[in-house]
Amino acid sequence: MKYKKHSGCPFTYALDIFGDKWSLIILRDLILFDKRTYKEFAGAGECIATNILADRLANLEKDGLISKARDPDNRRSYIYSPTKKSLDLVPMFLELICWSAKHDPKTAAPPAYIRRVKKDRAGMVKDIRAGFKGVK
Amino acid sequence: MKYKKHSGCPFTYALDIFGDKWSLIILRDLILFDKRTYKEFAGAGECIATNILADRLANLEKDGLISKARDPDNRRSYIYSPTKKSLDLVPMFLELICWSAKHDPKTAAPPAYIRRVKKDRAGMVKDIRAGFKGVK
Repeated sequence: MKYKKHSGCPFTYALDIFGDKWSLIILRDLILFDKRTYKEFAGAGECIATNILADRLANLEKDGLISKARDPDNRRSYIYSPTKKSLDLVPMFLELICWSAKHDPKTAAPPAYIRRVKKDRAGMVKDIRAGFKGVK
Repeated sequence: MKYKKHSGCPFTYALDIFGDKWSLIILRDLILFDKRTYKEFAGAGECIATNILADRLANLEKDGLISKARDPDNRRSYIYSPTKKSLDLVPMFLELICWSAKHDPKTAAPPAYIRRVKKDRAGMVKDIRAGFKGVK
């Protein structure tokens, strides 16, 4: 079942791009957990199947959320980076993290992290973005 | 393909609950567009199949994001309401809307709405919540 063709709705636009669970997990790993290679995404804990990983990376690149470049240390491999477009998701990520931390009794979100999001959201967004200088 | 059993990760927790496109569309309609009945959700524009709608409503209720009560005007029908847990998603919704409005050239998000989110986010969250007094 697919959505009706793009309606201009902000929700359907966003969901068509990263509404898929794996796409958002990849963006999480890339932006918040500093994973940068196919191998690192594949080994990141949620056991993503390699065909799904390859498919989602290609889609995220096509939609302008990630970019890739040859790894200078291993020319057969790629280094993935977020784009300005995906870094603009950071405020939404922080809201999502706070929501889960509040409602999930088993949350693994560190309390100090949540306190900082609540107290200094803008500073945190800035710090995360600062880790990706020079992205386009 | 399912996620590995719940890891405490805020992303997987949130995605397991509303990472499905239709679940988020239902929450959008309920919280932002004031749809309250099965019939209103079914007719909300994205042509959700009735079996998917019934399934997602049941899951959202099970996960504590919506509640239902008999419609006093039509005892054979239900009125759906958000819960405190789903109203806590409003800040995330506003971030999602701003992100799409910025990056979707065909966005249908009204510019005045986006300006207000940027200028008075807290006030907007408050106003939306105020529309659902007495939720549990």
